[in-house]
Amino acid sequence: MEFLADGRQSLRLEWKDIMGGAHRNETVQVSGMVHAKRPMGGGLTFLKLRKQDGVLQCTCDGLDLSQVPEEAAVVVTGTLRDEPRAPGGVELAARAVKVLSRPAEPMPVPVAKAKLHLNLDTELSLRPVLLRNLRERSIFQIQAGLCRAFREYLQGQGFTEIHTPKIVHAGAEGGSNIFRLDYFGRKAFLTQSPQFYKQTMVGVFERVFEAAPVFRAEKHATIRHLNEYTSLDLEMGFIDSFQDVMAVETGYLQYAMALLEGEYGEDLKRLEVTIPDVKRIPCVRFDEAKALAAEKYGYRIRDPYDLEPEEEHAIGRYAREAWGSDFVFVTHYPSKKRPFYAMDDPADSRYTLSFDLLFQGVEVTTGGQRIHDYAQQVAKMEARGMDPAEFESYLMIHEHGMPPHGGLGIGLERLTMQLCGLENVRYAGLFPRDLSRLEP
Amino acid sequence: MEFLADGRQSLRLEWKDIMGGAHRNETVQVSGMVHAKRPMGGGLTFLKLRKQDGVLQCTCDGLDLSQVPEEAAVVVTGTLRDEPRAPGGVELAARAVKVLSRPAEPMPVPVAKAKLHLNLDTELSLRPVLLRNLRERSIFQIQAGLCRAFREYLQGQGFTEIHTPKIVHAGAEGGSNIFRLDYFGRKAFLTQSPQFYKQTMVGVFERVFEAAPVFRAEKHATIRHLNEYTSLDLEMGFIDSFQDVMAVETGYLQYAMALLEGEYGEDLKRLEVTIPDVKRIPCVRFDEAKALAAEKYGYRIRDPYDLEPEEEHAIGRYAREAWGSDFVFVTHYPSKKRPFYAMDDPADSRYTLSFDLLFQGVEVTTGGQRIHDYAQQVAKMEARGMDPAEFESYLMIHEHGMPPHGGLGIGLERLTMQLCGLENVRYAGLFPRDLSRLEP
Repeated sequence: MEFLADGRQSLRLEWKDIMGGAHRNETVQVSGMVHAKRPMGGGLTFLKLRKQDGVLQCTCDGLDLSQVPEEAAVVVTGTLRDEPRAPGGVELAARAVKVLSRPAEPMPVPVAKAKLHLNLDTELSLRPVLLRNLRERSIFQIQAGLCRAFREYLQGQGFTEIHTPKIVHAGAEGGSNIFRLDYFGRKAFLTQSPQFYKQTMVGVFERVFEAAPVFRAEKHATIRHLNEYTSLDLEMGFIDSFQDVMAVETGYLQYAMALLEGEYGEDLKRLEVTIPDVKRIPCVRFDEAKALAAEKYGYRIRDPYDLEPEEEHAIGRYAREAWGSDFVFVTHYPSKKRPFYAMDDPADSRYTLSFDLLFQGVEVTTGGQRIHDYAQQVAKMEARGMDPAEFESYLMIHEHGMPPHGGLGIGLERLTMQLCGLENVRYAGLFPRDLSRLEP
Repeated sequence: MEFLADGRQSLRLEWKDIMGGAHRNETVQVSGMVHAKRPMGGGLTFLKLRKQDGVLQCTCDGLDLSQVPEEAAVVVTGTLRDEPRAPGGVELAARAVKVLSRPAEPMPVPVAKAKLHLNLDTELSLRPVLLRNLRERSIFQIQAGLCRAFREYLQGQGFTEIHTPKIVHAGAEGGSNIFRLDYFGRKAFLTQSPQFYKQTMVGVFERVFEAAPVFRAEKHATIRHLNEYTSLDLEMGFIDSFQDVMAVETGYLQYAMALLEGEYGEDLKRLEVTIPDVKRIPCVRFDEAKALAAEKYGYRIRDPYDLEPEEEHAIGRYAREAWGSDFVFVTHYPSKKRPFYAMDDPADSRYTLSFDLLFQGVEVTTGGQRIHDYAQQVAKMEARGMDPAEFESYLMIHEHGMPPHGGLGIGLERLTMQLCGLENVRYAGLFPRDLSRLEP
């Protein structure tokens, strides 16, 4: 027996230490993957060492690197010195390169290029190794930042994190786009959203959030649908209006954009992302938004109760041109297009106290106020031909008392896609699932 | 159109404001759920107002509360004043109680009691409302704290958060305990662990973590198995030994316990939890641990290659009695009991470079070093009768180069169960899934 007391720290330098400016002209060790190997002639080779947060240039003068292929894991010993021409202004003058492991085969595609320029299908099939491309991985650093900001901001606003089941006995959103499962001989489903559970937890903690996978068996292939995605969900009690929920989302976006600007500068630069202005976000009613865009861009409204992707795009463009905003809240969606738990507008029950958030014309959030009154909820279910008995454990919360409440769900991949200017949401999921793609 | 600029803040006081000591002898508004209503005689009634972080005592003198039932959502207006006899030393002398919503039916069980004392099945069936009990919800505050600590600590150690698919084409852990799914006419599975994907991402980010659901179709009902649980996973590259992984876990536990002590004091008190000492954690080899416990407690070792739950319990007891620790790392598990990706000990290939962490005799973590060499991984798969072709996208990372790496998975519900002294892991999941339970 021996005791393990705490962090065994490696003597090798990490990125912070390297960039921090200390250790200049000292002998140091740095571990990393050989991202690229560039013979410069005259016995000089540049090894680009891939680290978590960037690439360190190692100059290898007169070293035999014949047994050090690209994508080898190595520890380089050398002198760290300022070099204005090197990326980050620092380089490692290598004296020794120790190989920890070697690949069996060279990369199928040179990942050290700035952009990959592959077709989508090839790229997705080779994802396990192509994500090592710096541009690709920056997308997921930004995604991690968006998720981190969600939790940090909400924690500061008194929200509690919850973990709700993904295997469920009934779908929250209805419809046929639900995956079925055999659960020890019983019929079960994969959750479409944590809706019932997050509402339930409002009765317990007042304010809750969850960042977790949801599953949609959508049978159509579009550039903005995934069959599995990460949903940033929140739900909050004691609201005066669904605008309280929109205010929390606005606060989140402000926090997230500031965090990205402050701590993810390299990734933003690599992806050429301009952080959108979220100081104030325009809000416009569903019917008003439709009319404004149709008039300005000269098209006829086909369905007064629905918003086609093209129409969302036009409203996004309108918000940019007329109000100078990449984001726009569209409010008061028609009742028939919203789920049974949405609260109708008491002023006009054809509409609901709800909203979507469009980001450059793409819906990234759906939210609204929910029904909290038992009789009202049962009546709305019955009016839709639903059997309340099937939702007994959900209705338990209405039956035994719920505060006025509302919430929202943000599609993390869509938010990432729009922020990073990606042309397909598949680029914003590490290992996306679609109609034809179940691996990697 | 109007603009939404930022956080619309309610004028009502939140818990921090109330307990902070400000606003004493001022007229304030506080919203909350009526947790309990206690007529004290002489026209005086105590309303216990349930807030996110505690219960505020409201004294209602001469107010008609006949229309204010328990579990109504209310806004109380009154004067906040010091009152040593009240919980938290403060009470609200109410002048008006406004009802925002009313339950349709009274609670099936009085949730304001300190302990519920129900049988497990009744409690789980009524969970959606019984979680409003303060003791029950404290369990999930602590769980949120454990999860938050995991992310905060790892972020500080240079780990990046990832989101990997839960619908997969092959299981990581093998065996029959995997849920099957119809995926647009193809056979698919629910993930047993993010193993393949987190290893893949070590090639990209060096250090990664994920806190997400995993699914195990275990057909036996025990007090420590759930069919769906939250796994705290991490994976890290450039390790010198699997002990580096154990060191990170030790660092996490130290961080988590300090966070709980610092910020979750009320919840710990309510559950009578004593924070375990994690300054140093004993590490003992699998075979040595078995021998020590068998000798001390006088039983025969039945299977030298396996660890039964009773044996884990004995080893946990031994660690407590001999080394004064609630935790013990058991290392070098037999190769035949570990998955195909586990690295065998070069000194004795019957054992692996792996570990479990036992907490009071219950396994809460499994981890170890993984094979990074392509030929070695293919050979181990073939020796087990597996077809490497079925794991093509996983083996891509070995083929094209991986650093030495390892990682672990912590069962969040088990960690919560042991820390809170719960007798069944089902009490540590909000809406647990087991052989017979698919709802709520």
